[in-house]
Amino acid sequence: MVGGISGTTLLWIGLVVCLLGLGFGLLSYSKLHKLPVHSSMKEVSETIYETCKTYLKQQGKFLMVLWVFIAAIILIYFQFLQHMGAKVLIILLFSLVGMAGSFGVAWYGIRVNTFANSRTAHASLRGRPYECFDIPMRSGMSVGMVLISVELFMMLFIMLILPGDVAGPCFIGFAIGESLGAACLRIAGGIFTKIADVGADLMKIAFHIKEDDARNPGVIADCTGDNAGDSVGPSADGFETYGVTGVALITFLTLAVPDPSEQVKLLVWIFVVRVVMLIASFVSYLINTAVTKARFGNAKAFDFEKPLSSLVWITSVMSILFTVVTTWWMLGDMGDGMWWKLSIIISCGTLAGALIPELVKAFTSTKSRHVREVVTSAKEGGASLDILSGLVAGNFSGFWLGTVIVGLMGVAFLVAGTGLGDMGAMSEVKWAVFAFGLVAFGFLGMGAVTIAVDSYGPVTDNAQSVYELSTIEEIPGISEEIEKDFGFTPNWAVAKHFLEEQDGAGNTFKATAKPVLIGTAVVGATTMIFSIIMALTNGLAATAEVTKLGLTHAPFLLGLITGGAIIYWFSGASMQAVTTGAYRAVEFIKANIKLSDETTKASIEDSKKVVQICTEYAQKGMLNIFLGIFFFALAFAFLDPYFFVGYLISIAVFGLYQAIFMANAGGAWDNAKKIVEVDLDAGGTPLHDASVVGDTVGDPFKDTSSVALNPVIKFTTLFGLLAVELAVSIGTGLVTHILAAVFFVVAAYFVYRSFYGMRIHPGDSDGLEDPDIDLTAPSATATAADLPVPPVSQESPDSPASPTSPDTVSRQTHRAGTL
Amino acid sequence: MVGGISGTTLLWIGLVVCLLGLGFGLLSYSKLHKLPVHSSMKEVSETIYETCKTYLKQQGKFLMVLWVFIAAIILIYFQFLQHMGAKVLIILLFSLVGMAGSFGVAWYGIRVNTFANSRTAHASLRGRPYECFDIPMRSGMSVGMVLISVELFMMLFIMLILPGDVAGPCFIGFAIGESLGAACLRIAGGIFTKIADVGADLMKIAFHIKEDDARNPGVIADCTGDNAGDSVGPSADGFETYGVTGVALITFLTLAVPDPSEQVKLLVWIFVVRVVMLIASFVSYLINTAVTKARFGNAKAFDFEKPLSSLVWITSVMSILFTVVTTWWMLGDMGDGMWWKLSIIISCGTLAGALIPELVKAFTSTKSRHVREVVTSAKEGGASLDILSGLVAGNFSGFWLGTVIVGLMGVAFLVAGTGLGDMGAMSEVKWAVFAFGLVAFGFLGMGAVTIAVDSYGPVTDNAQSVYELSTIEEIPGISEEIEKDFGFTPNWAVAKHFLEEQDGAGNTFKATAKPVLIGTAVVGATTMIFSIIMALTNGLAATAEVTKLGLTHAPFLLGLITGGAIIYWFSGASMQAVTTGAYRAVEFIKANIKLSDETTKASIEDSKKVVQICTEYAQKGMLNIFLGIFFFALAFAFLDPYFFVGYLISIAVFGLYQAIFMANAGGAWDNAKKIVEVDLDAGGTPLHDASVVGDTVGDPFKDTSSVALNPVIKFTTLFGLLAVELAVSIGTGLVTHILAAVFFVVAAYFVYRSFYGMRIHPGDSDGLEDPDIDLTAPSATATAADLPVPPVSQESPDSPASPTSPDTVSRQTHRAGTL
Repeated sequence: MVGGISGTTLLWIGLVVCLLGLGFGLLSYSKLHKLPVHSSMKEVSETIYETCKTYLKQQGKFLMVLWVFIAAIILIYFQFLQHMGAKVLIILLFSLVGMAGSFGVAWYGIRVNTFANSRTAHASLRGRPYECFDIPMRSGMSVGMVLISVELFMMLFIMLILPGDVAGPCFIGFAIGESLGAACLRIAGGIFTKIADVGADLMKIAFHIKEDDARNPGVIADCTGDNAGDSVGPSADGFETYGVTGVALITFLTLAVPDPSEQVKLLVWIFVVRVVMLIASFVSYLINTAVTKARFGNAKAFDFEKPLSSLVWITSVMSILFTVVTTWWMLGDMGDGMWWKLSIIISCGTLAGALIPELVKAFTSTKSRHVREVVTSAKEGGASLDILSGLVAGNFSGFWLGTVIVGLMGVAFLVAGTGLGDMGAMSEVKWAVFAFGLVAFGFLGMGAVTIAVDSYGPVTDNAQSVYELSTIEEIPGISEEIEKDFGFTPNWAVAKHFLEEQDGAGNTFKATAKPVLIGTAVVGATTMIFSIIMALTNGLAATAEVTKLGLTHAPFLLGLITGGAIIYWFSGASMQAVTTGAYRAVEFIKANIKLSDETTKASIEDSKKVVQICTEYAQKGMLNIFLGIFFFALAFAFLDPYFFVGYLISIAVFGLYQAIFMANAGGAWDNAKKIVEVDLDAGGTPLHDASVVGDTVGDPFKDTSSVALNPVIKFTTLFGLLAVELAVSIGTGLVTHILAAVFFVVAAYFVYRSFYGMRIHPGDSDGLEDPDIDLTAPSATATAADLPVPPVSQESPDSPASPTSPDTVSRQTHRAGTL
Repeated sequence: MVGGISGTTLLWIGLVVCLLGLGFGLLSYSKLHKLPVHSSMKEVSETIYETCKTYLKQQGKFLMVLWVFIAAIILIYFQFLQHMGAKVLIILLFSLVGMAGSFGVAWYGIRVNTFANSRTAHASLRGRPYECFDIPMRSGMSVGMVLISVELFMMLFIMLILPGDVAGPCFIGFAIGESLGAACLRIAGGIFTKIADVGADLMKIAFHIKEDDARNPGVIADCTGDNAGDSVGPSADGFETYGVTGVALITFLTLAVPDPSEQVKLLVWIFVVRVVMLIASFVSYLINTAVTKARFGNAKAFDFEKPLSSLVWITSVMSILFTVVTTWWMLGDMGDGMWWKLSIIISCGTLAGALIPELVKAFTSTKSRHVREVVTSAKEGGASLDILSGLVAGNFSGFWLGTVIVGLMGVAFLVAGTGLGDMGAMSEVKWAVFAFGLVAFGFLGMGAVTIAVDSYGPVTDNAQSVYELSTIEEIPGISEEIEKDFGFTPNWAVAKHFLEEQDGAGNTFKATAKPVLIGTAVVGATTMIFSIIMALTNGLAATAEVTKLGLTHAPFLLGLITGGAIIYWFSGASMQAVTTGAYRAVEFIKANIKLSDETTKASIEDSKKVVQICTEYAQKGMLNIFLGIFFFALAFAFLDPYFFVGYLISIAVFGLYQAIFMANAGGAWDNAKKIVEVDLDAGGTPLHDASVVGDTVGDPFKDTSSVALNPVIKFTTLFGLLAVELAVSIGTGLVTHILAAVFFVVAAYFVYRSFYGMRIHPGDSDGLEDPDIDLTAPSATATAADLPVPPVSQESPDSPASPTSPDTVSRQTHRAGTL
């Protein structure tokens, strides 16, 4: 009872709030759909959507296959070892619901984005920047609100409707399902998008054509990839993260707080805080929109990053305020200053959600000194020093972001350490875990806004492509037509400028969201692993067992070392899939691109073929990686539970740094290229070539390997929870050790396949003893070399009159291929 | 008493063996010195030696400055807190001795190498491959034997001569001194060599000149760097590793084994095993030499890698045999099969020393499928996919090597787990730590040979450069002169071919030694940290304290996370130093290289200037990095000892993977370039350019960042031992926490400086708010663009007749710089 309202009533109110949030999201959807758009642009965006749909359907089928693996484990454990009977079906059902949630939210995001992209492109023609900003912002907020509302609704539903003894396992099933969905969509999407992106980008060097040239058959795949990678991925990931950090806390409270009334009180509090933060996000959005409209509504130009930054900061402040007030209201009667202590702890997380993006900008924004160093390096040292400077940026960001995360966790720990009075039953271990769990929980407290600014990027990225692909400027009588149909005169030059600028802002905010999501993996890991620890140590009572979770127990230490191996393998395997796929895409595009004057667009067949290449390698790559991870989790859980706990912590910590490093190095290279293209207007020069090399190396860094680590870590941890309990039920001994060995061999097989089965020419030779390089090169290259000289798009008027025309340079590149 | 011989007598015998080993090394030295060499080559090698000497002297002075920091801590702890009185002077003396050891061995290595390089180049003229192989092999063995003998001699000296109560602290002081020397020489040498290497290599793309072109003023610096990096670094590192793993075991035994007679028995055993392994290495070398001479003594050609591989394997088998017999002889009377258990455990390490090199070849040798994938990728995808494939190779190697290391540790743990009978007093913790310590100890058991095959590389690399720099072929009447003076007719073509092939073999074996050294850091970490653990837990008796070394204690967990931050920072900072330095070097070389027909050699002044640039950035970079590491260690030790233990384990584990990844990615790129240059004979083509980009990115990967991690980790751990004891003596509380904060701020300042103070144009702007890129570019570039057209050295007769001459390409590159 708080202020005369019962906990249950509060939760029901929360449920209603979620429905309202959902309503807002859907309302935005329909409004966006009705916005004016020229048919040429609409057509492009529908093509992109159709391709995305095909991709998503394939992924959906694939997910069902992978789900069978998980379902088998759930069935074996709950049915054959726990004898839960019919209730197992409910758990299985909720694992499907979780997966469907990740998948559904991803689909919703794609649908909204593929409206918004063409509407944005169209709006840019009016020459008013505010509208250009408003549409992707609204679509982003629509995705953010729907995502959080659906997630919160489902969790409240489980809490309120399901019987207590099923709710726990259902949460686990639900969370595993979410994680499975998010992990696979992140991996496959990340591979897909970067095959297409690298493939399309390398044509800039090879033929000196501009970004999004409609004659490039890789561009449609690239647009699809922007959605598959930058929209599907983050939506599913955000959905999963928001859910899993919540489930971790719920599980913690049920295990750690013995007094039932206190338990319920805290559970209700947690949910109410989430609901209140959702409201805070929404209110902040309204405030920010009003302010932005007042300031920039009629401006001729403004910095698109400003309203995005202010939104994040307003939401952060509002969320903290709302949290403090709510906590005071609900827990003010608990002794020992509980309300302010918990407020501070949770706010450490909320603050991280605003602080981390600011820090990321120091390494990836076009204004950052690190990014400028990349450009400077490239001027004298070409691609070599460009790459090295980008790696430096990534490495330094690993240090600073890691330090900030440790710092925030440290503050939370210290505050909790002053004593959480009424929870006297809690040992030091418990309150530390509780504090970390709350920090992780706070990370995504303002999730709706985090997702919104993240979703801004794929829309603006696509909008630029839609503009180019529509070739709208070349439609005869187009100005008059638009004047007649839409009532304004299009301004092509200004439109392109806005779209370019927006893309830059989108890039920056895409970059900033990544470390927030990955941050949750490590901060939340302790809380998630806590259930395993409780099970192993008889609720922390068995001191001898507690000791085994430390350095003085060799299996734990060995597990700690092993985690690193898996993270490095994962990075390598995901990059290999992109590399092979990109090779195939480049090979195909080089052979089929038509650059003669009369060709304005690539054929649909060619475009589809590129999409097919991307899909093929995304699937293959994902399968190897996922099954590898799955069987490693089983193997290590069966080997020894303490080894496994070490392993879990290790992948979380290794994953954190690897992800931050890769995401920010990629971001630095990307924006260095942006500086070269936009600020220096140096397209087509060797400096540009060098920066494109950096950018393409960074592509799988930032959008494949790094972003998939968060869901992969969470999936392993959650699934590992089941796996350990399964192993312990069977009883550690010869049987489990034999099984562990078998699982390890299977996993190692997939590791082997993830390189040797994914090589560019796997047929050539499979023996290390055969040192022949395939010197006869793909015939496609020879064809490409015979292509007509591509007309060079000299984007820059003052770019140097080179003594050799760029096409001879590109011919040289071909020659290398045919050596 | 073993077989009637007392332990002390055995150790005295060991001392004599060491003197004999030293004698052998010095004898080889004098023999190598007397080998015939043409004056033109001798002159070059003396120039290289002189430059190296200048470099080493500077480093020596610098080391003394850094030693003051360490000495201060030693003084405060032992004098003011432990009140050891005059004995402190002995400890200080031994820290100097340790440092001098690392430094002296490095100097010795350079001196031998700079004889051997010109002797090898000269011998190649005879056209007999065996002699080409024999000289660098002998010089390598000379370095290896001297290194191990000196190290072992010093340790035996401390054991036998010094009083017991001083011996312990002396070992610590000695080890810290070694580590300080090794860490600094590795860091500075790594930066120096790669500035020079990248600078010289990038000229291959810019001017399409060949490797080691005498007109390139960067070549002398490159040769100096080969020694500063590949000879000084590994010698100092090997010396330190061999010593520190030994000290760790000694310290362990004194702390863990309560029974004095057992303690002495095991101590003597450890030293005798080391001596026996030294003998085994020497005997194996003799056997291998005999076999190689018989097989290839008169061969016209043979694979240079074969005798190097066979040496490693013969030594491995011999070492294991000798170890088993010795252990049986010395410990056969101990119950519970102690002798064979300990033999197996130690052999896990010895095996690692042979197994790891084999595995490394799967990722870096020219025959590896990973390296071939790099070449294939580059053919279609240029530098972008070349880079990505190399990263994939590095990542996968991280997985496989990490798994093997965990596996070997696991076997050791399991064997120890069957019970080490007579040592019943040992808890599980102790025997696990003991087992890991023995594995680490075994890693470098065959150290003389590991160092010998590693030292082969810099000699052969230098030999090739000496040949080119001597421009011997252009001396009038040279054939007759050699005929007259040396009694044979030189065969230029064959000589160059042999030198090229040797360089490849040298590359491979340089690559294989790195992961062996880094492996010891993580395997040995537990043993080294053991002293701290013993101190904190009252010899493991305080269970509550033991628990704090685990996951359930938040500070430990936070320390575990923090380690990653430091490793990523270290990687970034060391690469930044190389990047900035390389930029400056490239800038200078581009402006001053003279490629007209009448110029055959770069001027001495220009060459010196490049050496100066390398030295300057090596010093600057090393200073920031070293002081950062030093103050972080102090800060974390003062913050909380459990946090610090977590931190130490974390840097060891993170460092392991980061080092393996970087070393092998670099190796893969290097040999991919080799394939393009040698097998495909594609010098001067875009494919070659792409592979040079990969190689230059890999340069700081493999020879700067990765290799320095091992000594850095060991230094931090050893120094941390003192720091923690210092903090604990002061008493954890407000004072130590304030000090921790101060130290942290100082360390963070050096982190900041390591990028912002090392930028290419730090003067331009220091505020993030200033987004201007320096578009006016260094004036040097403009000068370079006005250079006469360089005559292209067409190494390949069938390389494509390009429609544009390479110099226009290079001009384009310049123009990019002046945009």
